[in-house]
Amino acid sequence: MKNTFGNSVAVTLFGESHGEYIGAVIDGLASGITIDREYISHQLTLRRPSGKISTPRAEKDEFKIVSGVLNDKSTGTPITILIPNENVKSGDYSQIKTIARPSHADYTAECKYHGFQDYRGGGHFSGRITAALVAAGAICKFALEEKGIYIGTHVKRCATVQDRNFEDIFADIKSINQKSFAVFEESAGEKMKEAILAASADGDSVGGVLETAILGMPLGVGEPWFDTMEGMLSHMMFSIPAVKGIEFGAGFAISDMRGSKANDPFRMENGKVITETNNTGGINGGITNGMPIIFRTAIKPTPTIFKPQNTVNFQTMTEVVSEPKGRHDPAIVHRARVVQDAATAIVLCDSLALRFGTDWLTPTI
Amino acid sequence: MKNTFGNSVAVTLFGESHGEYIGAVIDGLASGITIDREYISHQLTLRRPSGKISTPRAEKDEFKIVSGVLNDKSTGTPITILIPNENVKSGDYSQIKTIARPSHADYTAECKYHGFQDYRGGGHFSGRITAALVAAGAICKFALEEKGIYIGTHVKRCATVQDRNFEDIFADIKSINQKSFAVFEESAGEKMKEAILAASADGDSVGGVLETAILGMPLGVGEPWFDTMEGMLSHMMFSIPAVKGIEFGAGFAISDMRGSKANDPFRMENGKVITETNNTGGINGGITNGMPIIFRTAIKPTPTIFKPQNTVNFQTMTEVVSEPKGRHDPAIVHRARVVQDAATAIVLCDSLALRFGTDWLTPTI
Amino acid sequence: MKNTFGNSVAVTLFGESHGEYIGAVIDGLASGITIDREYISHQLTLRRPSGKISTPRAEKDEFKIVSGVLNDKSTGTPITILIPNENVKSGDYSQIKTIARPSHADYTAECKYHGFQDYRGGGHFSGRITAALVAAGAICKFALEEKGIYIGTHVKRCATVQDRNFEDIFADIKSINQKSFAVFEESAGEKMKEAILAASADGDSVGGVLETAILGMPLGVGEPWFDTMEGMLSHMMFSIPAVKGIEFGAGFAISDMRGSKANDPFRMENGKVITETNNTGGINGGITNGMPIIFRTAIKPTPTIFKPQNTVNFQTMTEVVSEPKGRHDPAIVHRARVVQDAATAIVLCDSLALRFGTDWLTPTI
Amino acid sequence: MKNTFGNSVAVTLFGESHGEYIGAVIDGLASGITIDREYISHQLTLRRPSGKISTPRAEKDEFKIVSGVLNDKSTGTPITILIPNENVKSGDYSQIKTIARPSHADYTAECKYHGFQDYRGGGHFSGRITAALVAAGAICKFALEEKGIYIGTHVKRCATVQDRNFEDIFADIKSINQKSFAVFEESAGEKMKEAILAASADGDSVGGVLETAILGMPLGVGEPWFDTMEGMLSHMMFSIPAVKGIEFGAGFAISDMRGSKANDPFRMENGKVITETNNTGGINGGITNGMPIIFRTAIKPTPTIFKPQNTVNFQTMTEVVSEPKGRHDPAIVHRARVVQDAATAIVLCDSLALRFGTDWLTPTI
Repeated sequence: MKNTFGNSVAVTLFGESHGEYIGAVIDGLASGITIDREYISHQLTLRRPSGKISTPRAEKDEFKIVSGVLNDKSTGTPITILIPNENVKSGDYSQIKTIARPSHADYTAECKYHGFQDYRGGGHFSGRITAALVAAGAICKFALEEKGIYIGTHVKRCATVQDRNFEDIFADIKSINQKSFAVFEESAGEKMKEAILAASADGDSVGGVLETAILGMPLGVGEPWFDTMEGMLSHMMFSIPAVKGIEFGAGFAISDMRGSKANDPFRMENGKVITETNNTGGINGGITNGMPIIFRTAIKPTPTIFKPQNTVNFQTMTEVVSEPKGRHDPAIVHRARVVQDAATAIVLCDSLALRFGTDWLTPTI
Repeated sequence: MKNTFGNSVAVTLFGESHGEYIGAVIDGLASGITIDREYISHQLTLRRPSGKISTPRAEKDEFKIVSGVLNDKSTGTPITILIPNENVKSGDYSQIKTIARPSHADYTAECKYHGFQDYRGGGHFSGRITAALVAAGAICKFALEEKGIYIGTHVKRCATVQDRNFEDIFADIKSINQKSFAVFEESAGEKMKEAILAASADGDSVGGVLETAILGMPLGVGEPWFDTMEGMLSHMMFSIPAVKGIEFGAGFAISDMRGSKANDPFRMENGKVITETNNTGGINGGITNGMPIIFRTAIKPTPTIFKPQNTVNFQTMTEVVSEPKGRHDPAIVHRARVVQDAATAIVLCDSLALRFGTDWLTPTI
Repeated sequence: MKNTFGNSVAVTLFGESHGEYIGAVIDGLASGITIDREYISHQLTLRRPSGKISTPRAEKDEFKIVSGVLNDKSTGTPITILIPNENVKSGDYSQIKTIARPSHADYTAECKYHGFQDYRGGGHFSGRITAALVAAGAICKFALEEKGIYIGTHVKRCATVQDRNFEDIFADIKSINQKSFAVFEESAGEKMKEAILAASADGDSVGGVLETAILGMPLGVGEPWFDTMEGMLSHMMFSIPAVKGIEFGAGFAISDMRGSKANDPFRMENGKVITETNNTGGINGGITNGMPIIFRTAIKPTPTIFKPQNTVNFQTMTEVVSEPKGRHDPAIVHRARVVQDAATAIVLCDSLALRFGTDWLTPTI
Repeated sequence: MKNTFGNSVAVTLFGESHGEYIGAVIDGLASGITIDREYISHQLTLRRPSGKISTPRAEKDEFKIVSGVLNDKSTGTPITILIPNENVKSGDYSQIKTIARPSHADYTAECKYHGFQDYRGGGHFSGRITAALVAAGAICKFALEEKGIYIGTHVKRCATVQDRNFEDIFADIKSINQKSFAVFEESAGEKMKEAILAASADGDSVGGVLETAILGMPLGVGEPWFDTMEGMLSHMMFSIPAVKGIEFGAGFAISDMRGSKANDPFRMENGKVITETNNTGGINGGITNGMPIIFRTAIKPTPTIFKPQNTVNFQTMTEVVSEPKGRHDPAIVHRARVVQDAATAIVLCDSLALRFGTDWLTPTI
């Protein structure tokens, strides 16, 4: 339903790049969940631009929670998070409000909102809004960890440079969640940063691939049709601006395998059913099978670049050359990883509450 | 919502592989839409197994419509389609009801339904249910064509054999929709069929990639957050059994491009705004930009194979060797193409009705 | 969502008065629930017209269940019920298809469906469709009884004749559910029947009030805003054709009380919190408080009468006199009681599954 | 879905009586709608307590809109309204946090939220939250007026004193919307106020009945099953704290009529189809027929009274006597009238957008 996602735990997003606040409402989350402000801050820090590989727009992201929390515990009623927009330069944008920046949403916003859209800094389409998603997701992610469900995302690929795959998933999630540039192999990370800086020096941008692992999901969550785990996760992930693809387990590579190679044989381990391989990414028939859920998203290069580009003025319906000024990110893949964590956490909380009831996340003493 | 998909036009699926009927209810579709039984039959024929490259289970798919249609026009109230299951051999399955076939949903069904699931022939998880999806989608697809919106899917890849890309999209859609094996290049099709037969001879199976094009979508459909066009389509597509990935436009390949290459420059053509390239697949910021929508799905090889596989008996919690008997498809990618068309049509009807009102699809004279 | 009701357990209705089948799909119901065909038949019998106080249209209501049930237990996947329409006389209606019967939906159907509606026998608006609601609700009602939650409805008032209130609610529910004419006081029932026959003799019709009691609802079900228990129940009840009002507990009478009279004092009984009185009908702040839920609906007199009535032909837009022929009910309040039970059961199953998880209704041994 | 209401236009409510802000998010509202801050302020003023007939809690309700509005026009993206809580006396409540005030939600909140609920001043259950509903509804109501759809609510009854019925509905709506105490007959209003003051002097409270008229609704809005106009409106209205009943048109009185009296004969007037009487309240078969929609709600007396009442301490599970201190309203019916207007406006905007598309409310020049 448009800006609300979820059936039992639902998140509503609002705000514009240059408005007073952006924010989120989380509805339906169980009562008694610890709201750890430092944890939320840390997630916001991981998203925040820093150094030369990101936009110079520096936000403090000093969020406040104005409802649904008492004595640092969720009350069970809607939790509202507000994040003020502080470093706003609206003057940067006003001259170009009818110029459609290529592969941005300026033109489609015009088609949908008929000129009434907030054009300043991308308005409601700005990646800035993902800060609210991160804050909401951080609350969910923390709650999941208390129940033994862990989420971690690394930059699997950036500017054609590859990071290694997940290996010891528990240890990998633990370590990656502490890193500001989320790669397992530092050398790969250095090469990625160099490539980002090189693109930046050219006034250009790069993309990449994010890989997420989820550990500890209970068995039997998800539906056979429509509300499959893959369907719910993918529905959400395309809300991360720049995502153009998603794949689970072996993903597109599975389409070149034969069944005898692709199938994941079941076996017993310590009295539990597990699979030898995990080509289906922890999901069979739309339902969790207890193995780690693994998925990857394709992140396109940031569309804002500092090169002249052919485009149109959609008011005058004439062709013009766009020469973006202002601030931008030469890559967002390294920042988007924490957005992907947050988005994942929201989907899981919703699926779990729907499956096991609204109190399932409430800690028991 | 589980077995119902859609907000304004909603489809509910029901049925099991060995039940009396499978079927679908389409609710919210505009009144006055022509219900062309031959068109529906043709779509069902395209899905139906045929020849040695498919399962020998031969269904006639003689559907009937028991509500919502009067004088071959939709009344505007729920349309219910029933498809009888005729060629049912329940004896094939009863011995193996607690054996988890690798990469099937037997084990996750057990986890979710606690032994009460209909285990015969995959039950509610059977690909058989997609016949109902095809019938429902056929009605939607026909209605869209009447409004100038066309959908076509080809087998982009099967057993590592590639078909060419979409070129003249209107002509390609028109031609592909008449083909029983949906490839543009007949030579590629022959090689694919050979590869399928080779796998079949080995008791094995192969997968592939399906590519869909949508032509004629109005501008400004989709939402910036959550109910993005990509999000809605992907949510649905993962209900096609075997889909493990989806990508739009350039998809995962875009993650290796620089922005200057990836961006789609806008220009004018015949007074309309178009883009030079279409790397974003017709969607910017979650909203249609008037260019063709292009997406691809990864189809895993059919999990049923005729080789011994290690697995477990989830009742006794012991390891066993599975040796499937019965009927199966050595590939389903060539049959799934029409399921993908149907699934796409349902999503589009829903999005369009939500955007432009429930009467939008009603033909005007 | 139009013809689908419910968030976790959802019911979809379909069919027309003169179509091949009417029916319902119940999605999301827990697995392992006993499907008692005799119980369902009994509920359908209670709804079925009988004697001179009802329409002479005699239906056998020989339902069949074509999905979601195996060995008389729910599988957890969608349950589809089909009820054939057998006693159809389409000839009765064809001449009057553009005459708006007063207080019927003929004219609003025309406004909504633009002439494509199935006009025969009221089409999708026919009270006939409630047979499908009854069958679906019967499954839910039986499942609730297994968990100790009981629902009963009596004719509180008909043609100004009053039945007594609920007294010993458990005993009253038990006895009323066995009665074909649902009154506690037989003498009141006789007077009601006389009044119905008197109206029938005049070619006229009467209405009434239905009162429902729910016993055994767990504490803490419902939401403070929007999805209040009252809101969910009332949303559903207005789908019973002829319902024009609903009130909980003391209902409209509470608006004339002072707070000191209206308030329900809490007290302890056998270690449980109960209330002395039950003016709020078992719901505080939208949430169940453990007391019986009591509500009443206003049922208007059947709009079909055998007297000339002024109306319009909405095709020619001229005034005409309507003189209905065919079959009708001089009252439906006594038949609607079982529809109200069924509708209530569906709402409760949905609320309980949402609150306590999708397996909550699965019987444990 | 819990704290979100609506399918196409959706409102999410958040906040607690003693939190920093209460507020609302309106999602899906068309772009280009005038956001008239004075109009919103006026609606908030009508809700605000004033004089001796209301609580002495004096709020300024200085709302701010932090997203979705640019240059006083809706952008089409979520509109977020924040209303600060200024006059908070948390000390008043802390001692009584485990005392269940009779007919309040203290006990059910405990059952649902397990002690984590914000108990201060009723928390999320407080009537205070309706200020956010009023602000959101005011935006909707203004937008509807621009399209010729008018809503007005009067106090039909208070403490057994009756106001006259709607007569010239257009004039009545216009006049009532300017009155701070919403009665047509000033003499009735005086008697109501006297009765409120008399109850207040006794430490007691009174209830009443609110009657709403809607003029100008387009034909053909609403659904035959489940999402009937009555169902949608009633679902919403029970979110107004204190509502215990709702009736449409003749309402409960229709249940005593015969069909020949209850039926609304159609006739032509100025080329339009109208009805002679309006006993069905403008809705046939769940769908608008173009006549005014009329409904009434039963408002219970404010549960907070200044008399000793028997109740329980739900922590110690012992019986205690409650003697409320602090602030309260001896009646809220006169304040709730504007909440009912707002709630109605939200439902109508949602139904209209779903029926006619998301741009329907966008003004055309």
